[in-house]
Amino acid sequence: MPQKEAKHPLIGGVVEGNRRALARAITLIESQNADHRIEAQHLLAGLPSNHQALRIGLSGTPGVGKSTFIESFGMHLVEQGLRVAVLAVDPSSARTGGSILGDKTRMDQLSRHANAFIRPSPSQSHLGGVGRRTREATQLCEAAGFDVVLIETVGVGQSETMVADMTDLFVLLMAPAGGDELQGVKRGIMEMADIILINKADGDLKPAATRTCADYAGALRMMRKRKKDADGFPKAMMVSALSEIGLSDAWQEMQTLVRWRQETGIWGDQRQQQALRWLSEEIEIGLQKALRENQQAAAALARVTQRVKDGETSPTVAAQTVIDSFLNGQDDS
Amino acid sequence: MPQKEAKHPLIGGVVEGNRRALARAITLIESQNADHRIEAQHLLAGLPSNHQALRIGLSGTPGVGKSTFIESFGMHLVEQGLRVAVLAVDPSSARTGGSILGDKTRMDQLSRHANAFIRPSPSQSHLGGVGRRTREATQLCEAAGFDVVLIETVGVGQSETMVADMTDLFVLLMAPAGGDELQGVKRGIMEMADIILINKADGDLKPAATRTCADYAGALRMMRKRKKDADGFPKAMMVSALSEIGLSDAWQEMQTLVRWRQETGIWGDQRQQQALRWLSEEIEIGLQKALRENQQAAAALARVTQRVKDGETSPTVAAQTVIDSFLNGQDDS
Repeated sequence: MPQKEAKHPLIGGVVEGNRRALARAITLIESQNADHRIEAQHLLAGLPSNHQALRIGLSGTPGVGKSTFIESFGMHLVEQGLRVAVLAVDPSSARTGGSILGDKTRMDQLSRHANAFIRPSPSQSHLGGVGRRTREATQLCEAAGFDVVLIETVGVGQSETMVADMTDLFVLLMAPAGGDELQGVKRGIMEMADIILINKADGDLKPAATRTCADYAGALRMMRKRKKDADGFPKAMMVSALSEIGLSDAWQEMQTLVRWRQETGIWGDQRQQQALRWLSEEIEIGLQKALRENQQAAAALARVTQRVKDGETSPTVAAQTVIDSFLNGQDDS
Repeated sequence: MPQKEAKHPLIGGVVEGNRRALARAITLIESQNADHRIEAQHLLAGLPSNHQALRIGLSGTPGVGKSTFIESFGMHLVEQGLRVAVLAVDPSSARTGGSILGDKTRMDQLSRHANAFIRPSPSQSHLGGVGRRTREATQLCEAAGFDVVLIETVGVGQSETMVADMTDLFVLLMAPAGGDELQGVKRGIMEMADIILINKADGDLKPAATRTCADYAGALRMMRKRKKDADGFPKAMMVSALSEIGLSDAWQEMQTLVRWRQETGIWGDQRQQQALRWLSEEIEIGLQKALRENQQAAAALARVTQRVKDGETSPTVAAQTVIDSFLNGQDDS
């Protein structure tokens, strides 16, 4: 067993729920610098794991009112004394350089509330990096004692799959549809949802929201039941983030589903499966990194890559050459 | 550089186009036995790479007449003096224990023709194994001088993606639809197709085939153009495998597309990209295998897996422990 190291200095502040310490810890785990990465591992290794938040994934295309919803729903929770962290996942930020949730003015009340913590999406280079960062940030928020971690993502297939694989509940936020047809929502995304919320169910849009909600309810009933669905789930409901309608009901339904999953053991199983998938992803990333950093293997890879490109060797044979160089290179080091 | 080993004894026969030697070589690469695997690598390493076949992926749900199509289309090619190999990919065989193409009687003429080689799908345990086997078998068929390698798969999403990633052309075989709506073909599969063939365009079904063909042609026109699409592609055409109608036209169109892709360099680029993806998959598989076979790493993995399951450690930290054990274990060995 490795000897006990001193805990990372940020841990004390994080565990006390100090938002500045939490923010600095997240900045550390977001860093791509190799030394920072080692420090981040040290930090994570020292975190207590006795507190679990409810992790909620929230997805919706631009324009459905996600920011307004997070503001209203988040305020609804903090006013009950719950502590709420909001993390954003935006793989597109790598392309655009921007980040969602950067505009905290749209969550004015929530961002100033003592029981809330809002963290914009960083500019990361790839989805894998965003995934690790968000999972680690979630662990930090849990160690900091937050009760709910809301992970927001935009409507891109891959990022939604990723968020669904790191949360306990997946909520899809939709706008009322113009016609009576289902909006261009991908079936794959609907299949991930535990709860579909039709937002803007107020004023002129109320009738459209009612219709849309019925359409989604119908579509959900047609879908194959998953083991993790309690009776009546997945379900479609109407809310108005702006008029603060239906937020309490939505929260009740989430809690009902969570309680059922906890009682049946599904909740714990899902967390285990998610953690094991994450472990296996991290091992894969670590092995690839070790290979790239091994001089012999990296040289062999460069050599066979050219031969494979030129069609001179079979990829199976070429791969074995690289693996052999890697294992021999380790022996010699 | 490693010293030149003696070539594998089967290579001579394979290169001469001896079908018995080819069949034995494929049996070798299909074997999961570790010694056979080493022998298979030796065999593949000694193969000449100067001959390229046209690799055609062929997909279609059961009942569209795939066997009959392969029989007719294959005969059409061999009668022109072309040598045709048919490989089947059937990931479901792992579940059912059966294999498609086992029933060679449905390809009676083709299976007996001197210029044809038909290989049923083996019972493999997972899609990765099926992928490697089919890619390696394709290389063997190319070394054996075949002009066309037809890779048949059933209509399961994942296997089709895999086949599309190991072929030069992807052909989707469809039956005439009953109504005027597109059949339950997944959009993702249509997006892979270079040519959609509506089979059974004969007798009573001719009008339905004509309508279905027009529907698909319309749907294809609505899709976003890919870089690899020559003018007019992807396209929908009618054939009748039973009455041997349209087979010559279909073959002409395939050749037109292939020639265009070869002239534009797209063909070669696609092959390179496919080979590099395969290389990287094989390296990943090899690394995972090396890790499992390393005692220290395997023990560390078992230990941290339990801790991750129990929520006692972060998967990022746990993964690093496994990687460190692996690298240290290599040093000590």
